[in-house]
Formats: sequence, C-alpha cells, structure tokens
Amino acid sequence: MPAPTSLWFGGDYNPEQWPETVWAEDMRLMREAGVTLVTVGVFSWSLLEPEEGTYDFAWLDRVLDLLHRNGIGAALATPTASPPPWFTLAHPDAMPVTADGVRLTHGSRDTYDVCAPAYREACLRITRELARRYAHHPALVMWHVHNEYGTHTHSAHAARAFRDWLRDRHGTLEALNDAWTTAFWSQRYSAWEQVQPPRATQYLPNPAHLLDFRRFLADAMRAHYRAQRDVLRAANPAVPVTTNLAFGSWVPVNPWTWDGDLDLVAVDVYPDSTGAGAAHQHAFAADLARSWGGRRPWLLMEQATGHLGNRVRPKAPGEIIRHSLTHVARGSRGAMFFQWRASRGGAEQWHPAMLPHAGADSPVFSEVRELGALLGRLADVRDAEVVEDAAVVWDPECWWALQAPALPAPDLDYPAAVRQVHRALWRQGRTVAFASPHAPLPDLPLLVVPMLYVTSDATARALAAHVERGGVLVATYLSGTADEHARVRTGGYPGALRDLLGVRALQYHPLDAAEQVAVRAADGTDYGRARAWSEHLRVDDARVEASYVGGPLDGLPAITRADRGAGQAWYVSCDLDDAALGAVLARACAPRRPAPPPGVEVVRRTAGDESWVFVLNHAERAVSASELGLAEDGHDALRGTPAAGRRVAAGGCAAVRVPRRP
Amino acid sequence: MPAPTSLWFGGDYNPEQWPETVWAEDMRLMREAGVTLVTVGVFSWSLLEPEEGTYDFAWLDRVLDLLHRNGIGAALATPTASPPPWFTLAHPDAMPVTADGVRLTHGSRDTYDVCAPAYREACLRITRELARRYAHHPALVMWHVHNEYGTHTHSAHAARAFRDWLRDRHGTLEALNDAWTTAFWSQRYSAWEQVQPPRATQYLPNPAHLLDFRRFLADAMRAHYRAQRDVLRAANPAVPVTTNLAFGSWVPVNPWTWDGDLDLVAVDVYPDSTGAGAAHQHAFAADLARSWGGRRPWLLMEQATGHLGNRVRPKAPGEIIRHSLTHVARGSRGAMFFQWRASRGGAEQWHPAMLPHAGADSPVFSEVRELGALLGRLADVRDAEVVEDAAVVWDPECWWALQAPALPAPDLDYPAAVRQVHRALWRQGRTVAFASPHAPLPDLPLLVVPMLYVTSDATARALAAHVERGGVLVATYLSGTADEHARVRTGGYPGALRDLLGVRALQYHPLDAAEQVAVRAADGTDYGRARAWSEHLRVDDARVEASYVGGPLDGLPAITRADRGAGQAWYVSCDLDDAALGAVLARACAPRRPAPPPGVEVVRRTAGDESWVFVLNHAERAVSASELGLAEDGHDALRGTPAAGRRVAAGGCAAVRVPRRP
Amino acid sequence: MPAPTSLWFGGDYNPEQWPETVWAEDMRLMREAGVTLVTVGVFSWSLLEPEEGTYDFAWLDRVLDLLHRNGIGAALATPTASPPPWFTLAHPDAMPVTADGVRLTHGSRDTYDVCAPAYREACLRITRELARRYAHHPALVMWHVHNEYGTHTHSAHAARAFRDWLRDRHGTLEALNDAWTTAFWSQRYSAWEQVQPPRATQYLPNPAHLLDFRRFLADAMRAHYRAQRDVLRAANPAVPVTTNLAFGSWVPVNPWTWDGDLDLVAVDVYPDSTGAGAAHQHAFAADLARSWGGRRPWLLMEQATGHLGNRVRPKAPGEIIRHSLTHVARGSRGAMFFQWRASRGGAEQWHPAMLPHAGADSPVFSEVRELGALLGRLADVRDAEVVEDAAVVWDPECWWALQAPALPAPDLDYPAAVRQVHRALWRQGRTVAFASPHAPLPDLPLLVVPMLYVTSDATARALAAHVERGGVLVATYLSGTADEHARVRTGGYPGALRDLLGVRALQYHPLDAAEQVAVRAADGTDYGRARAWSEHLRVDDARVEASYVGGPLDGLPAITRADRGAGQAWYVSCDLDDAALGAVLARACAPRRPAPPPGVEVVRRTAGDESWVFVLNHAERAVSASELGLAEDGHDALRGTPAAGRRVAAGGCAAVRVPRRP
Repeated sequence: MPAPTSLWFGGDYNPEQWPETVWAEDMRLMREAGVTLVTVGVFSWSLLEPEEGTYDFAWLDRVLDLLHRNGIGAALATPTASPPPWFTLAHPDAMPVTADGVRLTHGSRDTYDVCAPAYREACLRITRELARRYAHHPALVMWHVHNEYGTHTHSAHAARAFRDWLRDRHGTLEALNDAWTTAFWSQRYSAWEQVQPPRATQYLPNPAHLLDFRRFLADAMRAHYRAQRDVLRAANPAVPVTTNLAFGSWVPVNPWTWDGDLDLVAVDVYPDSTGAGAAHQHAFAADLARSWGGRRPWLLMEQATGHLGNRVRPKAPGEIIRHSLTHVARGSRGAMFFQWRASRGGAEQWHPAMLPHAGADSPVFSEVRELGALLGRLADVRDAEVVEDAAVVWDPECWWALQAPALPAPDLDYPAAVRQVHRALWRQGRTVAFASPHAPLPDLPLLVVPMLYVTSDATARALAAHVERGGVLVATYLSGTADEHARVRTGGYPGALRDLLGVRALQYHPLDAAEQVAVRAADGTDYGRARAWSEHLRVDDARVEASYVGGPLDGLPAITRADRGAGQAWYVSCDLDDAALGAVLARACAPRRPAPPPGVEVVRRTAGDESWVFVLNHAERAVSASELGLAEDGHDALRGTPAAGRRVAAGGCAAVRVPRRP
Repeated sequence: MPAPTSLWFGGDYNPEQWPETVWAEDMRLMREAGVTLVTVGVFSWSLLEPEEGTYDFAWLDRVLDLLHRNGIGAALATPTASPPPWFTLAHPDAMPVTADGVRLTHGSRDTYDVCAPAYREACLRITRELARRYAHHPALVMWHVHNEYGTHTHSAHAARAFRDWLRDRHGTLEALNDAWTTAFWSQRYSAWEQVQPPRATQYLPNPAHLLDFRRFLADAMRAHYRAQRDVLRAANPAVPVTTNLAFGSWVPVNPWTWDGDLDLVAVDVYPDSTGAGAAHQHAFAADLARSWGGRRPWLLMEQATGHLGNRVRPKAPGEIIRHSLTHVARGSRGAMFFQWRASRGGAEQWHPAMLPHAGADSPVFSEVRELGALLGRLADVRDAEVVEDAAVVWDPECWWALQAPALPAPDLDYPAAVRQVHRALWRQGRTVAFASPHAPLPDLPLLVVPMLYVTSDATARALAAHVERGGVLVATYLSGTADEHARVRTGGYPGALRDLLGVRALQYHPLDAAEQVAVRAADGTDYGRARAWSEHLRVDDARVEASYVGGPLDGLPAITRADRGAGQAWYVSCDLDDAALGAVLARACAPRRPAPPPGVEVVRRTAGDESWVFVLNHAERAVSASELGLAEDGHDALRGTPAAGRRVAAGGCAAVRVPRRP
Repeated sequence: MPAPTSLWFGGDYNPEQWPETVWAEDMRLMREAGVTLVTVGVFSWSLLEPEEGTYDFAWLDRVLDLLHRNGIGAALATPTASPPPWFTLAHPDAMPVTADGVRLTHGSRDTYDVCAPAYREACLRITRELARRYAHHPALVMWHVHNEYGTHTHSAHAARAFRDWLRDRHGTLEALNDAWTTAFWSQRYSAWEQVQPPRATQYLPNPAHLLDFRRFLADAMRAHYRAQRDVLRAANPAVPVTTNLAFGSWVPVNPWTWDGDLDLVAVDVYPDSTGAGAAHQHAFAADLARSWGGRRPWLLMEQATGHLGNRVRPKAPGEIIRHSLTHVARGSRGAMFFQWRASRGGAEQWHPAMLPHAGADSPVFSEVRELGALLGRLADVRDAEVVEDAAVVWDPECWWALQAPALPAPDLDYPAAVRQVHRALWRQGRTVAFASPHAPLPDLPLLVVPMLYVTSDATARALAAHVERGGVLVATYLSGTADEHARVRTGGYPGALRDLLGVRALQYHPLDAAEQVAVRAADGTDYGRARAWSEHLRVDDARVEASYVGGPLDGLPAITRADRGAGQAWYVSCDLDDAALGAVLARACAPRRPAPPPGVEVVRRTAGDESWVFVLNHAERAVSASELGLAEDGHDALRGTPAAGRRVAAGGCAAVRVPRRP
C-alpha cells in the first residue's frame, strides 16, 4: 500500500441521504475541518442496483468526482452488508435463519445468509461492477469490503457448508465424534448429513458443537471477504483492500486469521463505557488492532463523536480529540468516524456524527475541526513504531468457548478478564502487544495469559518456551483447563499448564456474586481480594506467593511462582481486584519506567533517531513535564511549542517530539 | 342518540356461564343494586354460531326478555373479538401472525387477523344475524361492537392491506422512499410488493416503517368497526353504536380519528396504580374520553371493583364509589363494570366483579349497592357541561413513534410525561381538556404540549396561532424534534418550534437513571430538579426563566419564555419533578381558583343556571365546605342535605348543587 | 424384588466415553470405594444402534462382564431418553414441538415426542433387543427405563393423543365444555378436532385447558414407561423395573399414579440450595420418595458430589456423607450418584462426579470412599421401617394448576409452601409422611394441608373424616378454593373446606413483596408475621386462634380452630414466617419427642425389636448423646462404638442401634 502523505481524517459519507444541494456544503465543511478521506457506498446497494441486474452509478460518479475535486480521498465500499429489498423476494432462501428456525427478512441491515449461493453470487456481481467502474478512479484510496461481518445463520445452506468445513477440519466422522464427545447423551453421528448447526433443542447443547459452529461461521465470513477481495485486487493491485472489523460481545470473526487477507487492518471502536472506561477501551482496541495486523499500518475506520449506547450521550469537551489521539499514538494511520452528517431518518438517526443535526456552529463540530488541525501536524509520526512493553494473550476462540452455557460459572467474562489485565498495565504506563496463542509469541519480557480456558498442546509448549528463554509468564485462573475441542483436561487443572506452573488444582471453587476472599502474601502483607473465582490448589513444584485467608480454602495457595529455565511462571488462581492484579504484574516483572500520574496516558513511538511521547491527560488536573519525566529538549508537535516547563492541561494532549536516546 | 332518563349503571353480564337457575338471582340482585344497563354477548360467538352458519339465539332471546321484564337495558355486543374454535380450523389463514412468523391459534380471546377476508366476512355474517333479530328489541339500548380493538398481525393479508394503505398515504413509491429515508441501510423499494410489515429482521428496524405500520393497523381496526357499524345502523338508525376503547401501553388505535364513527365514546379504564395513583388515572382517562368525543356524551363502559394487576387487590372502602364518580363528574353517562358476576372458570376467573365469588353479603357488593343508589340521585347532572380549565396535547401517533428502539434515550415515557402534566393540573384543581395536534385546539388560556416528539408543520402553525391570539403555551422537551415521518428536523432542536419558542438546542443531554441536575430560577430561587433529560440550549429570542446548576450544562438555560403576539411561549428543556412542573404551569398561567386541599379532587359541571361541584375526598381527613370555598346555598345531591357547614368525610364524596353565578 | 444383601452404592457409569484402557482403573477404584451397583447405558442408543436396525452390543457385553467379574451389579437402562441423530432424519415428525410451533432437533438430550408413533416403536425395538440379550445376565440387578421423563410437546401427534385422553376423561364434549368453562371468551368446542394443545395464542390461556394438558402429558409419559416395562418384565419377571423420577420445578409426572408401575421408586435429587437448605431438601425428597412408593423400598438413584446449579460448587467436608445418609435413614436402599467419572466433554462436563477430573487423590473421592465404607456397615438397616410422625398433603396436580398465569397472585409458590411445612416439622424432629389427596390418608395424628388450591369433593370428605376420627388437620391459605377443573368454588373461600373449618373468606387480600402484617394470638402474644397473603375471614363455627394487627384486616381473624368430632380443624389464612408456622403446628399437635438441637437431624427406623437412631449433625458444634436423648445402651453402627457419652462431631453422623422399647 502506498503510504499516504498525511494521516487520514474523515468518516462515512452517505450523500445519497441528502439532496445534492447539500453536497456543496458538505465539501466546504469537510475542507474547513481538514477531512482527507471518506467512506462511500457502504449501504448503497439498493440505489446502485435498483433492480436485479440494472445499475445506476451516475450519482456515485458525481460524488467521487466531487470528492476528488476537493482533494478528498474515498474508501469505496462494496455494499454487500445490506442486500436490497428486491433480493429478498427473488431469493427468500438467502435470508438468515435463527436457531429457532425464524427466517429473517429485510427492513434493517445485515440481513443475509453468508452461506447462500444466491447471495454470494449477487455480491460478486455488484463487486465486479464497482471494480470495473472505479478501480482506477483518482479519488479511490482503498476498497472497503462489506461492513462489520457478523450475521449468523442456521439455514440449510449453513448446514451444508458446516458439514464441508467439518470434513476439512476433522477428516473423518470418527474424529468428529471423538472431538465432540458424542458418546455423551447419545449424540454419535453415523453419517455426515446428520450433523446440523446448533438449532433449538430440548436442553443444553454440546459445547464442542457450539465452538466449531462459531469457528465455521467466522471462516465462512472470511471466505466471503476473500472472494470480493480477489475481484477488487485483480482490477487494480495498487489499491489496498480492507474491511472494518467490529468489536463487541458477539465477536463474529477471528481477526488473527485475517492478517494475510487485509492490506491494512481497519476497526470500528465503540466503547460501552464513558469517562475513564471509554478512554481505556479505546487504548485496548487500538492495541488489539495494531497486534492483529502484525504491527503493520492499521486504521481506526469508525468511532463516534459521542458515547454510544442506548441513549444520546455527548462526550465531555476534549474527549473526541483524546480518543482519536490514543489511536494515532498506538499506530493508527488516522481517525475516522461514523458518520459525516447526522441522518434525519433511518434506524441510526440518533447516532452521533461529525456534523450534528444542529449544524456547524455546534460544540461537536468545533472539536472535530480542532482535531482535523491537530492531525494535520502529526503527518511525520505516521511511520514511527509503537514502543511495546508487555504482551497479553487474546483469543476469540477461547471467548467463543466461554459463551457456552453450563460452564463452571455463569459469569465467566473472558473479555473483562483480558481487559482487566490490559487496564492494569495501561495504568502502569506499559503499552501492550496482544498475542495470538496460535502464532509466534512477541519477544517481550512479560507475557500475561488471562483466563485461557481453551489451551492447545502447542500453545502450552510455546508458553513454556517463552519462560525457558528468560521470559516471565503470568497465567490466570481457568487457563489450560480445556483442549481445542473444549474438552476438560483430566488429572487436575490447570491442565495443559500444570507442569509449567508447578501446581495442580484439585477442585474449582467459584464464588457467588456477593462473596469475596482475602489473599495474603507470604510475607504477611495483604495482596487484596478475590471475587468470582478461587481454586483448591496443590503446589507440586513452585513457591507460594500468596495464600487465601478465610473461607473453605483458608491457608491454601492462591498465587504461585515457579522458576523454569531462565524465567518464571506465575499462576493466579483467583479473580483479583484491580489493585491486587496490578501488584502481581509489577512484582512478576517490574515496569521499565515509573507509572504516569493517575488518569494520564503515555505512549511512545520511535522512528529513526526520533521519538514521540504522546500524553493524553484524562485527569481533572494539569500535569507538568517533569511529573511525566519528559526530556527537556522535547517539542510539542501538536502545539508547536517546546515541552520543557510546559504543563498538559486537564483534558489536554501533547505529542512531544524528542531525540531518541540510545 | 336519545338521552337516557337516568345514568347508566351495571356491567358485562355473561349469563351463558351459569345455569339458568342463577339468572333469577341475578335479576333480583341487579334490581337491588339499581342496575340499569348490562353489556351482553361480548364473548358469545361460539354459542350463538356453534357451527359455521348454524345459529342458536334462543338463550339470548331469553336473556334479553328477562332483562326487559326487569327494566334493565342491554348494550348488545357483536361477538367478533373471539371467533369460535371451528373458525380456526376452517380458516387457518385468518389467525394473526407475530413478527417472528408464529401463527397464533384459539384458546384465549382476541385471536383474529383483522386483515383476513375470511374473518371479516364471518364477522359481518354474525353481525347481520344479530341486527336482524334484535335491532328492535325493547331491551336494546345500544350496540357494542367487538371488544377492545388491539390484535396485531404480520400476515400476508396484513402485508397486502398495508401496501394498499401506503399507496393511499404516500401516493408514489418515491414518496414512501423519501418519507422512510430508505436511502439509509439500502432499504430503497423498487416495487410495491417489496414492502412488508416490520417482521423479524437482523438488527434495528426503520422507525418510519414502524410508525406507518402502527397507523395502518389502527386504521384497519377502524375499518373493521365501520363495516359492522354500517350493518347495525342500517337495521335501526335510532340505536347508537359504539365500541369500548381500551387504554394501556399498547395503545392500538387513535381515538381522535374515531369520533365521527362512534355514537358515543365508550372506554375501559383499568389503572395500573393503587391509591392516589389510581384516583388520578381515573380522572386522566375520563378527561381523555370526554375529549375524544368532542365533549359529547360518553360512557365508562368497563372498570373493576378491585385494582387490576397481576394479583387480586381489593379497593379500600369508598374507592369503588369515588372512582366511579370521578367519571360521572367528568361527563360519563354512568358507571359500568366488568363484570356483573365473578366467573368460576376461564382465564379471568380472578378478575374482580360487582358480585364476587363470596356472594351478595360481601363488602364489595355492599359498596356496589351504595353506588347504585348514589347514581340514581344524579340523573339531573347528565346533560351538564364539564367546566374545563386548561388544554393538554395528547397524540397516540407520537406515542407510537416513541415506542421505537434506538431513540435518544430508552426510557422516554410519553404517557408518563402527559400524565405528569395532567397530574400537576389535577392537583391545582384544574380540569383538563385533551387536544389532538391534528384538530382545532380548544379555546382555553393554557395549552400544554408535553414531549410532542412528532410535530407536523401544521401543528407548529396551530400552536403559534394559539399564542399569537393571547394563549399561553408550555412545551416540554423533545417537542418539535421530528416531522410526521419521524425524521429529525435539522438545524437544531426543538425543530418545528424553534421560532415560536425562540430557542435552539445544539445537543440533547439525556441523563442516566441515577442522575439529577438542579434548576434555578433567574431570581435565584430553586425551581426543583431535572431527571432523565436536559438540553444544551441557546436562546435566540426569549427570556431565561431558569438555568441548570452544576453538571455539563451549568449556567445554561433550562426553562425559557418568549412573548409572541398577545401570548407567551414557554419551553421546558428538561424532565422536571412534579413540584417544579406544577410551579412552571402555575407561573405560566395562574389558576382561576385556589387549589383544593391535598388529596381532594374537585370538578365542576354546569347546565343552564345551575352547577354541580363534585368533591371526591381521597385524603385521610375530612374537609369542610369552607376549605373548599363552596357556596353557602349549595345542596349535596348525593345525600340530599344542605352543603353549608358540611364536611366531606375522609374517603367520602359530595355533589353540591349550586345556582350558577355570572 | 429380591432384597439385596447390602445397600446399593455407586452411580451412573458411562464407560463408552472413555478408551477401554481406562475401564481397568474404573474397576480398581470402584472396588476401593465399595461400589456395589452402577447404572449403565442410559445414553447409549446411538452406540448400540448406530444405524436404524443395526445393533452393536459387543462393547456393552464387555462392560457387563467386567462388572460382574468385579462383583458389581448393573442397573441396565433403556436408552430411549436420547434417540440418535439418525432418528431425527428418518422421523422428523417425531421431534417435540414447542407451544410456538418450533420443532426441536437433536444436539442435546431428551429431544423426542412421546406421542409420536415412530418414536414409540423405535423405543420398543431397542428395548426388546436389550431384553433379549441381557434379561438373564448375571450382573443385571434391575432395569432402568428411560431417564427423567419430562419432555413436553405440542405436536399434531400430541393433539391427537390429547383428544383421545380428553374423551376418556370427560366422556362427552359437553362435559369438557363445562369443565373448562368454555362459555367464557367464546371457547366452546363443537367438535373434538377443534381441541388442541395449549399453543401460542393472543392472550391468557384457559387454566383448565392448561391443567388437563399437564395431566395428559404426565399420563402419556407413564404409558411410554409401561410399554417398555411390559417388554422387560416379560423377558425375566424376577428383575425389578424402575425409572428415575426427577424433582424440579417443571414436575413432569404425577408419581402418586406410578406406584403400581414401579417395582421400586427411584429418584434423582438435586437441591437448588446449599448448606442447611440442601440438607433439608434432601430430607424432603427422601420423605416424598418413600411416600410415593407406599413405604416400600426405594432408591436414591442420582445425586451429585457437589451442589448443582449454574456454577461448580463443592460440598463442604462431610456433606456428601450426610446427604447420602439422610436418604438411607429415610428408607433408601442405598445412595447412588450421577456419575462415576467426570466427563471430559459434552454438556455436563462440569457436572460433579464421584471421581473428579483431578482424579482419585482429590478430597471428593476421599469422602466417596469413606461413604462406601459407612454404607457397608448399614446392611442390617435395609428392611427397617421409618418411624413417621406427621402427614403432609402434596399434589402435583395442584402444583400444575398453580403454574397457570392470572392466578390471585403471581408469586404463589406451591412447592415452597409445602417445603416450608415440611421444614417446620423437620426442625421439630418430626419425620413426615407425604400423602396424596386422592388416596387413603395416613393414620397419623397430625395432617397438614398446605395451599391445596385444587381440592375435590372427595378430598374434602376424606379430610373431614380424618378430623372426625380424632385427627388434627391444619389447612393453610388457598386450600379448598378450586375444584378439580380449577374452577373457583363460589359462596366464599376456602370453598370445599368451609364447613370443616367453620370459616368463610369474603375476599382474598394478597400482599405485595414488601408488605407484612402482624398476627397476634387471642391471648395477646405475638404469633409472628404474615407475608404474601392474607384473607378477609368471617368465622361461622370456629374459635379465633389469632388475628391480624394493622392493615385493612386489622382485628379480623387470621388463624382459627374448630372442634369437629374427636378432632380439630385449623385454618391458617395467611403466609406465616417459619417461626410462626412452627408454633401453629406445635400448638395444634404437640410433638411426641423434644426437638433436637438446631441444625441436628434425627430419624428413627425400627425392625423387629431393634431400632436405629440416625443423627446427622449439620451444625457447627458437636452434640452429645444426652442432648439428643439417646439411650445409654446404644451402639453406633457407623463407627462400631458404644453411643453412651459419645458426641457427634460438628458435621458428623451416627447411626445408633438400640433395643426397641415398648
């Protein structure tokens, strides 16, 4: 992908919702705000192909020409996330089907069956038309395939494709029967056609069945992407192709497996918290996106100018800028929003936008304008590397496994567990590289493995190797418990990690919502409290770092550490509160730098002999350069002023450019 | 409609549930209680037409003759709200279908598809038979069509009828595409047959689609009513025709549009609160019913002798009487109940009745008897006009629009907002006339417009004219936001009312459940607190009446007033507590009379040179005539005693008849 | 059934989930733990008949032979609770259908339509094969038909069978129309084919329809059992046949009606509480099981080594033993578990087992081993009779009736009401015999009838006869209200029991969740408090034992007692707290023995001239023999030591064998 000369700034632009008389104002305000890139055409299928095989590209021609004339690039989307109403009537079998057998219909968005041949063909047809017409348009900066892959289906098409996928994965029906433990509850399959998606059934479903179906759906969505990508790439290999991956609790795809397919990772980030929680969630998502792409360029494709949720919630002054800059600091090639102009109608008429209903004299548009100006001053940072301090394992397959019913506890929250580890490191000023358990691990001194319920033998070996060669590993409760088919490893938890950690749990002791138990260090000081989870642990070959106080496990080990090779392997057998978890991580592997003041986020990037220190002050008081340990010869790239003696105002930001030191 | 010589008193009478030996006791006890009217036949279809085309009217003949012999009138119902079991088998396609595609079946009540030709034909057949047989029966006082219209359906029949309705409303498909903003999410229709009811779909539905479907269903129910009304009217034009409109959160029809179709408005009133809440809800419903009928005669067709809800809940002594009299005071031609005798079996076997399971020696029947006696003394009031003091806009279309998902907040409660305004006025002793935003506004000094999210241009003009000619308008938050297609008006909220109110909101700031913000008057006194909602307001041409204190809007305007023509236009940009809202209303337009003591309800009616002052004492202490400011020459029509010096006991009532003063 | 020479101890054994190499360890550990009986083959259909009509019994031959060689008996199951996947494909119509019309499919367990001919035939085929092959196998101890009957279906098959059942029950359609009060809401049936299962309908269903459908489903399941029982019995009449009845809120069958069909009652007991609640629930279930079988031998077929619920929850040390012994003390022929070895995969991979994931060196397996040893010392007790002190009526039909919607209150909890009475007696050291209201009542001095909403005339007569001949009856609120068709009895509650109790309730006064009202004895002492329920009671022919204080019923009777013949009939018109209810029961009929110390459970068994006193100390302190009033010449059968002077440790047990005294 040719590197852009500046950072991207803009959002989804849906001019088809407005009379063309409005477009001129759009261009004027985009220029005023410094917009450089807009996403076009995401939901335009029913306009571009109003009847099957009849196309109308005239209006899109005008939009792209207009953008080009105004110096604004286009991320041109294939509109396949929302087939037009005529498609439903022509191909009722291509609508998705719920587990209960309800066939959905148009009237919203994302209503398609990714396994239906008619749908896949229709997608390729419109993609070919777009590629033919626009692959060499001067406004075209990148292709944006589809939108937020994620629709599930339990249709007959899905059943057929699922069986093909299972044949590939398991080879024989006997292997599938073994992997799924179908001997339990008389579920043994004697012919492939007996295997179905996990549809409505009388009682608890089979967890391995559920897990494989999630894997299958994720792969089916990736296959759908690849087919379009191939068409677009063939039309003009110079134009990068991506899709916007969504976060969110349903975690539809496994981004680790998309790296080779995306020319740059693009993500949509909508935190569900406000305040400090939102700030952290942005940082978390940015670290994930950078890691998914193997530290190559990536892009924050969507965020909102207000908090999202079930009610309108304006951001506090400065938040739009700080949330955007945390992404840039963590490697994003820019900051994009959904959407440019707030819609009058449609289901997202209350979704915040860069240009709100009230118009350009609103506080939101003022801050958007200011952000555009700031980004314009950060072009030099675009190729700098993000300095990473610690690695954390994150695995959507584990998340899927922990979405099954009938787990050891109903409230096992995998994303919360990973987020808590990230948050503890974020507060310590450590920037996190996320790691897939199925790929080479990053070469960083600290590797944290939170709640890795599903752990393959290969992963266990890789973790051991990390420790063996001098790394520190901190694994938390439930890790190692199950194999890749979600089968519990017998002989004592944490299963695959028993030898590495030198411990063996005879029994899990989940706690109720109201229960807590104290955890005390071997030297008698309090570590903090465990909620939600504890384990009856036996130490085989490790030292006891801390023990339970009170309750049925009184005096038994809670946290252990084992010397292995040149490194150490820690086990945290309980769900610690934030402070205690932070203390464990600091003790297991001391941070390289002192932690920033509370509420202040610091991220470093380096390129050649320079580095940038991004300071995002989420706190309610100003912080001084000396508090942050900033070099005296720094220079704030955002404000163009020397950093020495400067303060970063409450809610403010700085990007201090300093010579890199050896 | 010929005026009755007395008020109506009675209830639903379902003698078919009992052996005929019980009927004699029914007659005796009805006479004892002073019953004058009973509703008959509402759920008798399967008895009257036990097989398709085979009729059995003999038992109904006996019932009507018996009633007539006992001097009791009949509101004879068409039984179409519950088709018989044979109907389901003969016409499975005439059963309603849920949004998920589940076809319902018999086994309850109200299970019909109002759009199904077979159902509509069957309804007309049984209606014709009833009309032929009973249109001139001497017991017949009125026709009671159907029961509580309200069943939704998403069937193929509904789809066809919906498309016809849309063609009528929008004319062209292009107009529909524009009104529904189908450019968003690729929903553009290229042929009418692509339009469906809002069935199950993958994600958020289109709010304009939802709103039009609710409008369509309401109209389809009205068409069903009209067809029967025409049959009945043709059989004997002298007999009035009505249906009992239900209140409740699903608000199935738009009663404003039924006025011309009902010979008298009839309503079923089942508050969901107890105590003072129930008392107010009765008053609220009565004011609505009177307003729906353009202040013509109306009737409380159903209420219960106990509180309704999910448990048996007896009323406190006196409540049956007070709840009934609030309706009479507000114009009802009587007080009717569901039902006369409590059922042994069936789904409503625990629904309270006039004659409870225990029998006639129960406290409930004693109070029923007393009520009958009191109503007998109020015949003279029946044509008196209710004195109204203030108008409040109420619009079911706005309510429907606010039942969509993805609104600015999930807890926007339109009926609660309207109810709160009514309650504040009720506490001030002001009787409310409700107004449709789509009809001429009442000529009253104060007009309150709570949360009118959907405001057409015509409505905005009518509100401006009210102010221009000297009226006071108080509009509350969200009013004016959207047009009649639920599209947000751009340029700043409150959209359609910006010029009239002289303000412009740049941003909505809904509050969380736990949040509150203080509102302080310009003179520094506290107004009260806002919950749920606040707005970032800019004053263009108005005075600031009160401002926010603290929070992100600290110091910005909260309540404004603008002089326009001879009147004033107030805007309340937040959800005030009861006390603060009452203060705003009192300040905007002072009541004509001092407020009654807390818990005491006072309503006035006038006819010729007389007037009646109804006093309903819901409080736990007696109140004296002087506290109520009652004229000394009054006479309590209920007790037959002079009013001077009298006290209205705790829980008691009076209807003081006084000469009208100029 | 030939009496076993020792108590049964073991669990479900599912060796097909494990490689045969594991089986040897199973045998070794079973012998080590003293296992005498295992349940085999419950979920093996898809292995035994991998394709329709193709059988593979080789592995089961090996399992049974192995068991036999190791001296372990087998409860051999018919695997019909989980038809194999091929069955679904071959017979889609034999899958169960929900009320919404969703046809379920395989992928869990229990997915079958008990009314489908194809399913019933397939069940008989596999049963015949098993009978033919194993009816004379030396390891075979009993047949275990199916598993936990309970799957509902609303299919066309169910509709047909339901209509046949209704013809049998009601004789004529007219009788059904009367019983179901179909005159209400136009539900009158004019032909049998109009009657359906209670499928999805628009509003509230008919309570009598619901109740008969539950009765029908329960009978359909029994018929399914009987068909298999006949096959098995014919193959070898010497081998007893049973099925494991499940407890739980859905209460699928009526065990009172199975007594003649089961050679011994077998039950699965999974309390939903922990601690004292779990201890009591085990005692409750054991008393029920013994009573269902008419005090003949019965068996605890399943329990768990940990608490069940939605999270793993280990039992406290000693609980596995105490929970098992409460069953033996109350007559169980042993103590069985689900399951022997914890599964690796499948939906119940986290269900606790005798041999946990961690292996044999776990605390759980230690206690299992100890339990096996203790049971080995109790062989002599196996034929001793359990000494019963009081009777409590329990009726699943009443429970079904109280699962309908639209009852007098939404939170009427029949099982909780029965459990509360049992708990009060349990705390007083009284062992309960449960009684069916449709069978001869036990000849015990105290008979308690909690919340018997559905009371037939015959039941009312039987209760009166009990009192007449000198018994004490304590009936609690709602008893007597409805007849066997769930129709309210008119004339005043408690309907069928008015004359016997000498009271008449004019009105029910359910209380809100937060409400309480005091109840005071005639002598002025406090009885305690009523929650949830109260009644406006009029005393016709009884004495007032206690009255309400405060609230709308202030001063009115709350508890009454009436002398009738040689006995007394008490009525408790409210939901008393535990202490107050215990006081009423003690006052109505004084216990024969002083209550044991709090938390200590004492049960007596007698045989010939000996008796055993089981002491289960659930408390946290030791109790001495003298505190328990134990005879000095006793001998602890569990420990082999004299009882005199002994203490039963906190959490410990004793089974003191003493000579029986006259």
